[in-house]
Amino acid sequence: MTTTILGTTPSSARDRREGLGPNCDLIGRPNGRRLLNTPALILDLDALNHNIGMMAAFGRKSGIALRPHAKTHKSAHIGALQRKAGAVGLCCAKLGEAEALAHEDAGPLLITSPVVGPSALARLAALCDRAETSVVVDNVENVHALAAALEGRSITVFIDLDPGLHRTGASGPATAVELARTIHAQKNLRFGGLQFFSGPTQHIEDYEARYRDVERRTANLVAVAEALRSAGFPPAVITGGGTGTHEIDARLGVMTELQVGSYVFMDDQYSACALYPATANPFRTSLTIDTRVISANWPGLVTVDAGFKASTGSLLPPRIVSGAPESAVYEYRGDEHGAIILPEGARAPRLGEVVGLKTPHCDPTVNLYDFYHVVRGDDLFDIWPVTARGRSS
Amino acid sequence: MTTTILGTTPSSARDRREGLGPNCDLIGRPNGRRLLNTPALILDLDALNHNIGMMAAFGRKSGIALRPHAKTHKSAHIGALQRKAGAVGLCCAKLGEAEALAHEDAGPLLITSPVVGPSALARLAALCDRAETSVVVDNVENVHALAAALEGRSITVFIDLDPGLHRTGASGPATAVELARTIHAQKNLRFGGLQFFSGPTQHIEDYEARYRDVERRTANLVAVAEALRSAGFPPAVITGGGTGTHEIDARLGVMTELQVGSYVFMDDQYSACALYPATANPFRTSLTIDTRVISANWPGLVTVDAGFKASTGSLLPPRIVSGAPESAVYEYRGDEHGAIILPEGARAPRLGEVVGLKTPHCDPTVNLYDFYHVVRGDDLFDIWPVTARGRSS
Repeated sequence: MTTTILGTTPSSARDRREGLGPNCDLIGRPNGRRLLNTPALILDLDALNHNIGMMAAFGRKSGIALRPHAKTHKSAHIGALQRKAGAVGLCCAKLGEAEALAHEDAGPLLITSPVVGPSALARLAALCDRAETSVVVDNVENVHALAAALEGRSITVFIDLDPGLHRTGASGPATAVELARTIHAQKNLRFGGLQFFSGPTQHIEDYEARYRDVERRTANLVAVAEALRSAGFPPAVITGGGTGTHEIDARLGVMTELQVGSYVFMDDQYSACALYPATANPFRTSLTIDTRVISANWPGLVTVDAGFKASTGSLLPPRIVSGAPESAVYEYRGDEHGAIILPEGARAPRLGEVVGLKTPHCDPTVNLYDFYHVVRGDDLFDIWPVTARGRSS
Repeated sequence: MTTTILGTTPSSARDRREGLGPNCDLIGRPNGRRLLNTPALILDLDALNHNIGMMAAFGRKSGIALRPHAKTHKSAHIGALQRKAGAVGLCCAKLGEAEALAHEDAGPLLITSPVVGPSALARLAALCDRAETSVVVDNVENVHALAAALEGRSITVFIDLDPGLHRTGASGPATAVELARTIHAQKNLRFGGLQFFSGPTQHIEDYEARYRDVERRTANLVAVAEALRSAGFPPAVITGGGTGTHEIDARLGVMTELQVGSYVFMDDQYSACALYPATANPFRTSLTIDTRVISANWPGLVTVDAGFKASTGSLLPPRIVSGAPESAVYEYRGDEHGAIILPEGARAPRLGEVVGLKTPHCDPTVNLYDFYHVVRGDDLFDIWPVTARGRSS
């Protein structure tokens, strides 16, 4: 199996002056990773490129477009690599995320949650001057407010469809048709199609169980798409899905583009999912956390410098991937610390040694950090900002 | 009961140019809070000042010094208010937190976790040139490495004592005396005293149960202090405790200064604790999250724009404090969203309306945000950066 290795150039002196954090002098230094202050977010460049290449190949083979979700990485740099590999644009969860990425020329951006309220809509209108922006709606009142806020600009609008979670989205065919009619009645809104995303489905570990869940939910999507066609509003694009369902979504053939996100990193929750029916997951773990032993005064455990402020996203603790025996486990010890619990008789990591952790859920963990430390083995290749970190609004 | 209202001046035009985020034009605008993009971290200025004044008064009355912990707020601005009210300095959980605060002239800083490894120690040495820095140790090897890294500088060192958690800290009298002897043998290290902090104790809700827990653990502290005095190393300062134990620590009379943190905000976990034996908690909730209804398509619930990326720190959900009926509850709906679940027959907040949330645990929640939006009612008084956000290393 071949993978595309995407070119990427280390940060320039100018970038460094503009602030890549306290570790920027280590860029390019052999074994520089070992000198990083910890906890540090680590990105394996070769695994990242492998993952981007594998998903791009999947999209080409399946004839389905990719619009990767930037809520996972929040990085202009990773987004650029995805677009270079053929992605048609990026998704953003929130307006603020899109604003931050637009500032870095991240190409076409689809905001996948409704943008609500006068000040947010005014900012969305201003964003349209800087980036090719599209947005989802699930409410007629919001469609009117959006059209009024644009002040002469125009925008592409997708109808968000509830996959059965009652989180966001139109409830079914009747409300979707009413939304499409309302969108069509506004001179400055273009109807782009449908969005459909079921978060919990992504994490069903068993392939067959996940397939049945997607199939069941997709029946509603098909009904809505047919109702829209009958009403004269054919959805040109059906966008959605994620890393957990991409193979199933492509197989069912209803979606025209995939909003895959976590495949770039492959966190522990996704690694536990059988993504393909017959073959092993083609994606590698590229994202880890380096944490250091800062106290070692008791038998059977050592304390490291990564706690809830360094890894988050579920009750599950991170998994140890390097620096300690395979059967050792990590336990949270508050906001600032964690414990490495050692099996009977195992050699404990020593004071100052580094332990590598694989995070259970990448998206909210990345959101804790200002920088990716991009490595090849122990060499620090580059530091990339988490461009839209904290932009959840 | 009187409280000290501390003066604070809104950010200057220069501060604004240097980037206070997308909401900076709203500073000083009446009802500006209502125009904030959400989710937004909200800080009630009067409640903050009340809390700072109340704790300062407690310290004076009890004859105990305050060295408030900046891991809670990570803010140079709030730290300055605490120092103006009489605090002897600030605590920092990590080297990176101290570096960021030193950059803003935050006064004397005590790093309350061991600083381990050659690159971290080199940075600690450099920090000593910029700020009056002290640090804790719990390991003889680390004492030697610290002394060697300082290169002619000198630093005050506290012995961190394990309160029985096996997280960090010397295990008891013998190891503490060995550490004190090692510190004394280094020309450039000054022995400052002891640090003693039991995190889980802080959150025991019942006063009597918490009192017994503190009393039991403090017996070990007393034994170590006596052993140090007998060995000729009297601990001049005994620093530690927190918001949950400050009244008990002062009453037991062993500590000479308190590392109180969360009292400035009073999150939901601390609000549940009876901090004083006979009187009500004197502190008010100053920290909340404003979140907005972005979807309202189903009876009995609405979806808001605050999820795991906007509030974190425990399995407990945030508590609703405004904008929805008192009996409504918040439930997480993933990284980006939450649900407001309404009681039977209650009026639901409408699309675009704001719901106020009180976070279960302030420290890691603050760490998600770049800015405090400092309010008086609905007026946006100022925006303060979360100076050391993300500096967990």
